[in-house]
Amino acid sequence: MGLNKQVKIILIETSNSGNIGSTLRAMKTMAFSNLCLVNPKDFPSEQVETLAANAKDLIKDIEVVETLDEALEGLNFVIGTSSRTRKVPWPNEALDQVSSKIISESNNGKNIGIIFGREDRGLTNEELQRCNLHVHIPANEAYPVLNIAMAVQVVCYQLYIDSHKNKIADKSSYWDVPLAESNHVERLIEHFIQVAAELEVFNKGNPRQIGARIKRMFTRIGLDEMEVNFFRGFLGAVEKKLKNK
Amino acid sequence: MGLNKQVKIILIETSNSGNIGSTLRAMKTMAFSNLCLVNPKDFPSEQVETLAANAKDLIKDIEVVETLDEALEGLNFVIGTSSRTRKVPWPNEALDQVSSKIISESNNGKNIGIIFGREDRGLTNEELQRCNLHVHIPANEAYPVLNIAMAVQVVCYQLYIDSHKNKIADKSSYWDVPLAESNHVERLIEHFIQVAAELEVFNKGNPRQIGARIKRMFTRIGLDEMEVNFFRGFLGAVEKKLKNK
Repeated sequence: MGLNKQVKIILIETSNSGNIGSTLRAMKTMAFSNLCLVNPKDFPSEQVETLAANAKDLIKDIEVVETLDEALEGLNFVIGTSSRTRKVPWPNEALDQVSSKIISESNNGKNIGIIFGREDRGLTNEELQRCNLHVHIPANEAYPVLNIAMAVQVVCYQLYIDSHKNKIADKSSYWDVPLAESNHVERLIEHFIQVAAELEVFNKGNPRQIGARIKRMFTRIGLDEMEVNFFRGFLGAVEKKLKNK
Repeated sequence: MGLNKQVKIILIETSNSGNIGSTLRAMKTMAFSNLCLVNPKDFPSEQVETLAANAKDLIKDIEVVETLDEALEGLNFVIGTSSRTRKVPWPNEALDQVSSKIISESNNGKNIGIIFGREDRGLTNEELQRCNLHVHIPANEAYPVLNIAMAVQVVCYQLYIDSHKNKIADKSSYWDVPLAESNHVERLIEHFIQVAAELEVFNKGNPRQIGARIKRMFTRIGLDEMEVNFFRGFLGAVEKKLKNK
């Protein structure tokens, strides 16, 4: 347990392997060590080692997976980094405003993933919809585009200083049921959308982007396992009634 | 006047020109633009342009000098960045603790220089003695060695957020749909519990206090009006199917 054990940095489809090395070094300077690469374009590569400098020892522990689903296995709280401007509106919090919340989630036992997108086009809307929280690094509005390893450095720095600021664990909130895994929530959302489609509620003058809105709603709750199970039971009962008709 | 006009980033004897390009990009993302190179080892170089990305426009304004004396010409307040452990005893402030002081100095009209040392061995004692303030970036004690451009990024980030604090807090989160009134949420919860009862999902081995748990879940989401309406439509559709049976 501890912030550095509970946080996993996830890079999606990184094309420049130098950025992977620089990310490792950035992480290590702030005492983080869990790196996961989703479908990296150029890995393994010598460049990783060169730029990792004295964080080379972390290379052997890098987790490499093919899908975001695999990367999120076992995580309960997922953060997507994104610039401010997105078409699907979603609260996009400023890093310095929200880092203490992230630390509280960790103190409450959540396993946390922080996702960084592709060098050229960041995260897709689908990927962002897997996230409980969207975070941006406050930056020059005319050019807010940090290099990806730089972004990791800044996020890890902010978490580092804030977690060393209040060493006393945040006991203000606790939860009686374990929080649901991200993938369980994802399956619940799929189930819900499927049942809603069978009920034809999508056709009745509902607004555009309703699928995205449903995902946003379920993701931001931070559901616990009991809630997920209850909802699945509820949807199962609805389906059964629909079939018996 | 303004922090970004009054601050000059000074790199001493940088040996890797890629770091100069990365530094420019890092500076621009935080709205800084004055870079001074003291006796750079590999400049000009194509690498600078490559790594500067969309901060290329700043290359032409880089000031290149041979000595620190020249770099400090016209500055009134000089900051040296240095890791914590130095033989020369000198107060070495943590960046996050001291950045508001730096901003005050700027507000008081001082021209500020922030000096970053060589990649391999930082600043000499003589150089540090030219500084009014020594600053370190809080970091992993086992490996506090940030890449130089990363260090510039973090310093500029900290100055940026502290100088924009009120603006950032105001803009940090927004929502596209008005939040639902408490009473609308309450009626949704009642509706949900009623439908769940009709579906008999309460009877199937569900835990005690499920009603309270459902309330807690819906209340903590912070539903917006559109979400409430969608959910009500969903529940209405379920009810209609139940009645048509």
